[in-house]
Amino acid sequence: MNIATVLEQERRQVEQELERHLPDEGEYPERIHEAIRYAVLNGGKRLRPIITLAAARALGHDGAKIVKAACSVEYVHCCSLVLDDLPSMDDAMTRRGRPTTHRAFGVATGILSADALLMHAFKLVADNGVDVGADGRRVATAVRDLATAVGSYGMVGGQHVDLEIAGRRSVDTETLEYIQARKTGTLFVLAATLGGTLLGAAPEGLERLRQYAGSLGLAYQIVDDILDAEGDPDEVGKDIGKDVDKATFVTVYGVEAARTSASGLISRAREALAVLDGDTALLDDIAVYCLNRSR
Amino acid sequence: MNIATVLEQERRQVEQELERHLPDEGEYPERIHEAIRYAVLNGGKRLRPIITLAAARALGHDGAKIVKAACSVEYVHCCSLVLDDLPSMDDAMTRRGRPTTHRAFGVATGILSADALLMHAFKLVADNGVDVGADGRRVATAVRDLATAVGSYGMVGGQHVDLEIAGRRSVDTETLEYIQARKTGTLFVLAATLGGTLLGAAPEGLERLRQYAGSLGLAYQIVDDILDAEGDPDEVGKDIGKDVDKATFVTVYGVEAARTSASGLISRAREALAVLDGDTALLDDIAVYCLNRSR
Repeated sequence: MNIATVLEQERRQVEQELERHLPDEGEYPERIHEAIRYAVLNGGKRLRPIITLAAARALGHDGAKIVKAACSVEYVHCCSLVLDDLPSMDDAMTRRGRPTTHRAFGVATGILSADALLMHAFKLVADNGVDVGADGRRVATAVRDLATAVGSYGMVGGQHVDLEIAGRRSVDTETLEYIQARKTGTLFVLAATLGGTLLGAAPEGLERLRQYAGSLGLAYQIVDDILDAEGDPDEVGKDIGKDVDKATFVTVYGVEAARTSASGLISRAREALAVLDGDTALLDDIAVYCLNRSR
Repeated sequence: MNIATVLEQERRQVEQELERHLPDEGEYPERIHEAIRYAVLNGGKRLRPIITLAAARALGHDGAKIVKAACSVEYVHCCSLVLDDLPSMDDAMTRRGRPTTHRAFGVATGILSADALLMHAFKLVADNGVDVGADGRRVATAVRDLATAVGSYGMVGGQHVDLEIAGRRSVDTETLEYIQARKTGTLFVLAATLGGTLLGAAPEGLERLRQYAGSLGLAYQIVDDILDAEGDPDEVGKDIGKDVDKATFVTVYGVEAARTSASGLISRAREALAVLDGDTALLDDIAVYCLNRSR
């Protein structure tokens, strides 16, 4: 089976779980729950929850044990997209061919549904901790990791600095890497480690997964920038060329250097898998896919 | 010592802890951390964290054990104020005599700092769980309670419905009570129970605290509406008369009925304290204060 088929199969299974664990849209206040479902059920690639399930297998566990944690990572990602698209941030009109959440539901409901989704993610992580019989320390670590990945030292910090540099074409490497690491890398690392944390995985295994996901996240972001610069708009599925006036890996280093860098990072991600005991095939497939993707 | 003096003493102690547990404003990205500190260190009454500490004493514990949980409740409250004030929501210019957070830092930083503050609250609850040696189930329950109090069935749901009815003077009682319970009650209940949950308090004690705080929260909100209708603007410390075109307890039932209702609720709150084993004096003082406050 080729990688695309494998990932599509995983995506379908994850999609069902993502829908199953969301609040029902008939629940009061209905409009908030409709907005939450709209923000999540949008045809995404679902790479992050697939990583969570694949990482559990790489540690020798059954992915089914940590499905809720996997969903929570994707919910957080969807929340971040709703926030990024807001008028005060990137002011985006469409995402994946549909109006953005705040365009469909209004700005206030957009903001509130993003926060509600975030809260739902914490609830699921807590539930998952109880499901697997995690002790207080493990549950606390998982919650703290989630909060840190999202908060001012994570995604929120990355988005803030990204807005600060908006319009600048020249930005120092350190700032650029800070943004990319926080906006993409942090959530990839969370995706790869959250399940293992709840399941009590050994520190060495978690450290390898952290290395894998850190490199993968950075490569993923670089490929995103390359696609923005030269991808086929129909295939990429979002406005392209939007970053031309913005500092990215591509505008700063050029396409060729960006490609070399992404390729090196993917090799490092794959190497980090070598010493893991469980089945690392899917994590390896994901790494290859991230480098060669066209959307 | 009169009640005002007691509460002022508690407030000062809480204030120090609130500052101590915040990220330092020099930490990168500085602007987010400045905004967080601005949103929190604003001269609030600190009633919610004082309730958390008082509730621990009412259960026979030392409040010092759950200071982080107390701070997290206040951080959540401050987060909700930042969100409520946003242009897409209440569009407020000032709060406690200063520009609102989004007016001082911009809308995007306002939204991001509110979310960062929320994440910090989860981190502190997780930390506090580890500090008191709570098992997985207790930590998970505390995290779930926090998430539920904030999310679509809590504060966020209340704020959403509140915005939906904006401009209407006639609203059914059920909707009005839903909003008040979610916007104020939920967080008061969380404040009263979060510490006990982490400390493994008996379900009966937690249930009494839930009754106390539910009644107190509703009374607090009614008194807020009365002060908005007839308070002294200098003393109240925020724009008053702003709710004249909005359905509140006062615009729907009139001031006299609102006063009677608040008074009945406070009696019920005080009665709920009767069977608790520990020192309930401070919780009782808070109830009396909430009814008679002038700001």
